[in-house]
Amino acid sequence: MAIEIERKFLVNGDKWRSLATGITYRQGYICTKKEAVVRVRIVGDRGYLTIKGLTVGNSRAEFEYPIPLSDAQTMLETMCEPPLIEKNRYLIKHGELMWEVDEFFGENAGLIIAEVELKAENQVIELPEWVGMEVSHDPRYFNANLIKYPFSKWTD
Amino acid sequence: MAIEIERKFLVNGDKWRSLATGITYRQGYICTKKEAVVRVRIVGDRGYLTIKGLTVGNSRAEFEYPIPLSDAQTMLETMCEPPLIEKNRYLIKHGELMWEVDEFFGENAGLIIAEVELKAENQVIELPEWVGMEVSHDPRYFNANLIKYPFSKWTD
Repeated sequence: MAIEIERKFLVNGDKWRSLATGITYRQGYICTKKEAVVRVRIVGDRGYLTIKGLTVGNSRAEFEYPIPLSDAQTMLETMCEPPLIEKNRYLIKHGELMWEVDEFFGENAGLIIAEVELKAENQVIELPEWVGMEVSHDPRYFNANLIKYPFSKWTD
Repeated sequence: MAIEIERKFLVNGDKWRSLATGITYRQGYICTKKEAVVRVRIVGDRGYLTIKGLTVGNSRAEFEYPIPLSDAQTMLETMCEPPLIEKNRYLIKHGELMWEVDEFFGENAGLIIAEVELKAENQVIELPEWVGMEVSHDPRYFNANLIKYPFSKWTD
């Protein structure tokens, strides 16, 4: 079991684009209840099944297993609530930390989010200049909610 | 992906007991919606995560992955709706077919079910003498429903 401590930010401008090459992500959710989220994900040409537990503060239990690509494809097509989440992920090292910048497509086109994983909840971090407002605690930005209320339908 | 074609029966008498040794099963469900069931199971000392799709006739898509025992224990304790299903499973060969006899404990104590997996929906099978009434299509006997309405609470 891994404990995941993450902070999530909006992104300013385009300076991050020249710093990395994006990898294609396609993912959906079999289950999105409070106690557990079950995610199916295809990263490039590899399939993964991920189980996440209850979020407590910024921490969350997470179990991830590689699965055959064809299993992941069948699960995405027949078991996940549409729309699927489609995005390119860019991994950008800044100081000691690895940032993940997600550029969304499909029903969430226009949304770009930067996430960083921390070792402790109170860890001090240096923000790159292209990182904007923090949205760690705004549930609209949870991936599971980007399916129910995609970015293209937000009114504010 | 495996397609599972199963028939399920009640059990008469005790003659099946002398034919095999039981293995302990402990399992729970992270998700039990129509499109997908996510099951966590500990068989003896091995953990498994299983995803089952929509049932069409007697057939159902099924994906099963071995997972670490400690992952399965955490999922059973923190992500699954109680009560957990606890049973001993006996594997009994009869003719060409392998029967699974499940003897339930806990909230389903008293219930014993025999299941057989088939190669085709119309396959003719020879029933052992200890096999009774067929319950393949009775949803009360689905494992997921034995949590919501355990055998000890049935009124008929």
